[in-house]
Amino acid sequence: MARFSRRTLLGGGVVALGAAGLGAVGGGAAVASRAEPEASRIVDVHGVHQAGIETPAQAFASFVALDLAEGVDRDGLAGILKVWAEDSRRLTTGTPALGDTEPELAVDPARLTVTVGFGPGAFDAAGLTDLRPSWLRPLPAFSVDRLEERWSGGDLLLQVCADDPVTVSHAVRTLTKSVRSLARVRWVQRGFRHAPGTRPEGESMRNLMGQVDGTVNPAPGTPDFDRQVWNPGDPAWLAGGTSLVLRRIRMELDTWDELDRPARELAVGRTLSNGAPLTGTEEHDDADFEATDRYGIPVIPPESHIARARPRNADEQFLRRGYNYDDVDGAGLLFAAYQVDVDRQFVPVQQRLADHDALGPWITPIGSAVFLIPPGFGPDGYPGQTLLEV
Amino acid sequence: MARFSRRTLLGGGVVALGAAGLGAVGGGAAVASRAEPEASRIVDVHGVHQAGIETPAQAFASFVALDLAEGVDRDGLAGILKVWAEDSRRLTTGTPALGDTEPELAVDPARLTVTVGFGPGAFDAAGLTDLRPSWLRPLPAFSVDRLEERWSGGDLLLQVCADDPVTVSHAVRTLTKSVRSLARVRWVQRGFRHAPGTRPEGESMRNLMGQVDGTVNPAPGTPDFDRQVWNPGDPAWLAGGTSLVLRRIRMELDTWDELDRPARELAVGRTLSNGAPLTGTEEHDDADFEATDRYGIPVIPPESHIARARPRNADEQFLRRGYNYDDVDGAGLLFAAYQVDVDRQFVPVQQRLADHDALGPWITPIGSAVFLIPPGFGPDGYPGQTLLEV
Repeated sequence: MARFSRRTLLGGGVVALGAAGLGAVGGGAAVASRAEPEASRIVDVHGVHQAGIETPAQAFASFVALDLAEGVDRDGLAGILKVWAEDSRRLTTGTPALGDTEPELAVDPARLTVTVGFGPGAFDAAGLTDLRPSWLRPLPAFSVDRLEERWSGGDLLLQVCADDPVTVSHAVRTLTKSVRSLARVRWVQRGFRHAPGTRPEGESMRNLMGQVDGTVNPAPGTPDFDRQVWNPGDPAWLAGGTSLVLRRIRMELDTWDELDRPARELAVGRTLSNGAPLTGTEEHDDADFEATDRYGIPVIPPESHIARARPRNADEQFLRRGYNYDDVDGAGLLFAAYQVDVDRQFVPVQQRLADHDALGPWITPIGSAVFLIPPGFGPDGYPGQTLLEV
Repeated sequence: MARFSRRTLLGGGVVALGAAGLGAVGGGAAVASRAEPEASRIVDVHGVHQAGIETPAQAFASFVALDLAEGVDRDGLAGILKVWAEDSRRLTTGTPALGDTEPELAVDPARLTVTVGFGPGAFDAAGLTDLRPSWLRPLPAFSVDRLEERWSGGDLLLQVCADDPVTVSHAVRTLTKSVRSLARVRWVQRGFRHAPGTRPEGESMRNLMGQVDGTVNPAPGTPDFDRQVWNPGDPAWLAGGTSLVLRRIRMELDTWDELDRPARELAVGRTLSNGAPLTGTEEHDDADFEATDRYGIPVIPPESHIARARPRNADEQFLRRGYNYDDVDGAGLLFAAYQVDVDRQFVPVQQRLADHDALGPWITPIGSAVFLIPPGFGPDGYPGQTLLEV
């Protein structure tokens, strides 16, 4: 039996583990695939932007909010972020974190991404309240909200996504444990999509109401995506960053299921069968909000969800990258929206939906949080460095 | 846009949906793969035994306990079981249930299995208390138990497993909704393993302590499996049935992580790297409980988990088919054991572990339930028929 001390293992790190720990595993193929994960299982942790936003959505996500401990200042915050950067570098490449207590759970990165965000409290703790963008605050209260404290707010965010739920679970534990003297977990929201590889190419996910969800989204790498999502450098330290609005939306499935299919499709403005707008045949057909039937009645009702959500100007667009949840308190959607400016892009749409939305009776916001997502970072950097080292 | 009334859709069933609902979806390949799921995605719902036990473990599971409504008698219970049989026949083949309100979520069965169980209360409701096997009752209280009512007991069980979490979620909702006037959900426990297809062939799952879990298990189709799991016909109506002990075992990860690797391996009796017994090199090597080191000290400590759990006679063996959980109340294992006779096979092992187990300080049972799993059924039958129609 291979024996090694904690010091050897953790101090020696990867090499010791690769030789003594994993070298004993099964056949040659298994060892090879573990020591060196396939490139398709690795999402680059470094870049102009943080990973996990432009990344094609993985099957599993945990959104974790943390609150900073009393007395954590700018240095303390930087310390947390440096640890997270280093943990992320390792875990996303199938390498156990430094001091990883379950290194065998780190071998398959499964397209792991770790995306870090700041709530308003992080700016206060760092003594940088003046630099907080005006949109970084709790959303205005909407009449439809039934918010619960246990799903709302937070000083810091970790968005952890991967195609294996064990990888997500291990990464969340490792990242939160690494900093536990400085920040405590406020809430964890776990979400899922269909199993990896089971949805036809180009089709959006289905949510638990059965709807195709997330159709109108900018395509990664396009000017539309860049314009909607990535901060262009205003302020300069935020260039390449963005924001996240996370809303926990409970689905009122019992009453939803009382509606017949035509009524549901009219509430949404899309077919249930493939998510096409009621004026089209394919999911990605443009909706024609002017079309009327032979009685002059709009085919897509003006009060339908997509008619109310439809942008009234080029500002009112953003990226959605949500996940289903099915938890002790019911089922619904972890609605995740990314945009340069929450007030300019997200709030007007949400306000219009809160004022009236035919789908409204069946979707109830029960959690809400806003985070600033700082720019990406390089091999020697960490998320938020451009802010904390101004 | 295809329009159809609720009656057409639900009454006409599969054909109407296939033609009107799914016919509109994307390209030809997508339609074909949806209308007719691949054989590898289908586990036969019919047979001598219920599916979901001998079935190679799917990646996701929900264990659902229900309590019967006041006044539900034998006929009412049979009604529930007939509905579940019919729902299961459909859902496991990618066909929406009768009255399925989200039929598009039913298209990929993803190796779905639905396994039905009876708690003690089901026998009382059916007026068949006299036929209840003596082992079908809450387990004796163990000193290590910290049981919570919200994870314990129940009149009926649905064990729903599949390789897609959306499939599991939809099946659970459909099955529980179909019978909601007769039985209400008592608890749902959701579990996961590694993503489908990511574990090397023949290797057991890893739990969230990082251990290889479930090594000593009978192989499906072998005489050992049959002897340990399937009731041989005593009583006759239970031939081909079994029992399930479900224990929710919280892992005390914070203190577990304070142990170094040798201490952990000694607590379990297996290596962390590949699950081999401390006297072997491969996971499935037999443990040598007599081996000593050069100082005469047993290599596998007598108080280690595997030494304490080791069967003292041929009776003390059973099938384990557990799942990880990581939930609002912590992380751990949904320990699921299947055996002919709970008292004869499971209880002595659990009693020995409760008396002493080096791993004990880090594993706390917080939920416990025992169910009888009736035999399998055919195209015209339902689970429990052999009992209810005696």
